[in-house]
Amino acid sequence: MDTYIEPRVLKGFRDFLPAAEIARRTLIERIETSFRSYGFLPIDTPALEYAEILLGKGGGETEKQIYRFNDNGGRDVALRFDLTVPFARFVAEHRTELPLPFKRYHIAKVWRGENTQRGRYREFTQCDFDIVGSDSAAADFEILLMMRNTFQAIGAGEVTIHVNHRGLFNRFLTMLGAEVQSVEILRTVDKLGKIGRDATLAQLAALLNDDKAACILGFIEARGGFEETLACITELAGGDCPESERLRQVYCFMLDTGSAASFILDPSITRGLDYYTGVVYETFLNELPDIGSVCSGGRYDNLAALYSKERVSGVGSSIGLDRLIAALETLGTLDNNNAYARLGIACIKGENAGHYQALATRFRDAGIPCEVFLEGIKLTKQFMLAEKKGIKWLLIPADDAGIAFSLRNIEKRETIDRCSSIEEAITMILG
Amino acid sequence: MDTYIEPRVLKGFRDFLPAAEIARRTLIERIETSFRSYGFLPIDTPALEYAEILLGKGGGETEKQIYRFNDNGGRDVALRFDLTVPFARFVAEHRTELPLPFKRYHIAKVWRGENTQRGRYREFTQCDFDIVGSDSAAADFEILLMMRNTFQAIGAGEVTIHVNHRGLFNRFLTMLGAEVQSVEILRTVDKLGKIGRDATLAQLAALLNDDKAACILGFIEARGGFEETLACITELAGGDCPESERLRQVYCFMLDTGSAASFILDPSITRGLDYYTGVVYETFLNELPDIGSVCSGGRYDNLAALYSKERVSGVGSSIGLDRLIAALETLGTLDNNNAYARLGIACIKGENAGHYQALATRFRDAGIPCEVFLEGIKLTKQFMLAEKKGIKWLLIPADDAGIAFSLRNIEKRETIDRCSSIEEAITMILG
Repeated sequence: MDTYIEPRVLKGFRDFLPAAEIARRTLIERIETSFRSYGFLPIDTPALEYAEILLGKGGGETEKQIYRFNDNGGRDVALRFDLTVPFARFVAEHRTELPLPFKRYHIAKVWRGENTQRGRYREFTQCDFDIVGSDSAAADFEILLMMRNTFQAIGAGEVTIHVNHRGLFNRFLTMLGAEVQSVEILRTVDKLGKIGRDATLAQLAALLNDDKAACILGFIEARGGFEETLACITELAGGDCPESERLRQVYCFMLDTGSAASFILDPSITRGLDYYTGVVYETFLNELPDIGSVCSGGRYDNLAALYSKERVSGVGSSIGLDRLIAALETLGTLDNNNAYARLGIACIKGENAGHYQALATRFRDAGIPCEVFLEGIKLTKQFMLAEKKGIKWLLIPADDAGIAFSLRNIEKRETIDRCSSIEEAITMILG
Repeated sequence: MDTYIEPRVLKGFRDFLPAAEIARRTLIERIETSFRSYGFLPIDTPALEYAEILLGKGGGETEKQIYRFNDNGGRDVALRFDLTVPFARFVAEHRTELPLPFKRYHIAKVWRGENTQRGRYREFTQCDFDIVGSDSAAADFEILLMMRNTFQAIGAGEVTIHVNHRGLFNRFLTMLGAEVQSVEILRTVDKLGKIGRDATLAQLAALLNDDKAACILGFIEARGGFEETLACITELAGGDCPESERLRQVYCFMLDTGSAASFILDPSITRGLDYYTGVVYETFLNELPDIGSVCSGGRYDNLAALYSKERVSGVGSSIGLDRLIAALETLGTLDNNNAYARLGIACIKGENAGHYQALATRFRDAGIPCEVFLEGIKLTKQFMLAEKKGIKWLLIPADDAGIAFSLRNIEKRETIDRCSSIEEAITMILG
């Protein structure tokens, strides 16, 4: 008796069947087209790196989730768990080869042994983009503008990007005499949206005191137009300073590009992670705000501090592709073609496969992807197969070489008998 | 004193800087466009799988090279070392969801801890394409035709595809009374090109005897036109049979599509691996035959035998992307753009970044990828930066909003003063 190995994938891992893979590809291709139109360049790095490189000075949660092992040469290695750390290593290693400012994107898989019960995957795709080697407000703004325009270009509709400045928040904490607890305060404030106002206030009061907690909440809840909010938090932070000037300049750029309606100044945005030092932001889809931020990031002072004494500052952002795909599915704007072929050539006699291919070449040369059917099964079954495959048109040869043929519109279930020429068929299919 | 972690990648692993990554992407995009024009669909599978799935009934060399470890949940897992085994598992698992015949491609990274001294990488990209669920000669031929046309489409020039039939060779061995040693004979014959005629003859004689060795060499060295060779080896294999009929039919399809000049019947092609059962082939670039086969494959009787009792036959092929890239580099037909941006907007004043972005948007909307320069450095330095980045044109704003501007052709080192309108600039850049 034969025994079979049960075909299955690991928990938290997925196969992508054609329909899902085409949707993913189409989305990635649109994102890339947008990034490339800004002159951003692709890079790639290894999936596997020295664990020391990826973990740096140790990483708490990360360390527990990482896929880490000894390779056959006894090296302590790990699968990358994000694209930021490999990029930091990349910049430190190749600094002299990169013309600065360097604008790059990287769309690739990363791996984390996370708890899959939260609906998370252990293998997922990240999409990172950064400008390194520029301290300018122009760089901050370019990332923001590209985010906004990219989401429009991929069919996600209008977005609202919540912007803030970590440095201004830190100035405010110093004014308040709370700079020592700044990391904990940032972490608490970052959860405002999740845990609500009262819980945040209580946690802050436990860290500091009631007055200071109320004061912090006053800061992060400041709301109004961009300029109004900016004036308010600038005052709370002790008056005009380079950080408020940076926000003012970015706001001017928004006005100059006619994009200001897509941005709000939101002092509650701090990004819990502590490597951000400047402008920070989160992106919400106007039609689906509840799914949370689909694209977040900010400015950092020194990307490659672990690997090099050369300071490399920059600003960057990351799109969570899986969440975005789910959102586009909900919005009904995800490309749901399950085929590239627009035309099929029906198989009447198996021995004519050469002629069918010659015929198909004519359509392919005219830019029409064309699938030749391989099995001489009943024509009605070929209609059904075309439908299942998502192919809209089927050419039915009437003689060996397919010089005479009819054309069936699979969707409308109509057959045009006697199509007079390939040119006519091409026009009909493209039309 | 600070200590830094040395930024480095593992032996056999590589970073792809923008120029190399753009070349790789452009090539992959061209290959995909060709595959899609035949109606082939993309799939993806996890990088990490159960080791049991990937190794099947144990795999000698493979087992030594594979990246295998226990994950945090104690599972015995491994990184995929090819795309064939995951595809077999995929087909067994999703058979009922796939309309057969199923035509798929998969371009993705695989990992092998190989000896890097042979110039091999431990992380490399494979490009596989298969038709499963069809026993027809039409499927065999479609793979062959798509291979030929894809190589033409990507700038690799004309190819010669060496075709043979494993079943016909087996018939011949049975006639010779040598079927018991067929696996060893196939492995020996497969090395003919590498070890030469005499060494092959000696190894065969050691396996069998001098007469039989000479007879096998007579078979594999049969040369002539397709039909002539087919007649010769058919006779040596005992006369007309389904296998010779299959080759004859595939040859007819070559004639019917006008592609016969790209194919030769080469009885020495056997593909050492023992899972092929039908037509087998290897592909050589006419301009660089010495680099060996750039695309090989064949027909198999049962892809998913390890995982399911359902038989799934098919025919498929694989392109070694790294070798192909090296070949295209040698031929000088590899895309060597190191930029997507065709136009840069020079930065005259940092505070005008918003206007520069608004200007850039006009060009992007016209289909011209456009990079906004971020730092107000000296103009000559911006010329040099544009050159380094591979950007052909630079727009130099003459006022704050860039309503008046001049346009510099970076390649020709010529500046067109006073470009009268954006439309004129677009025409010039696209022209």
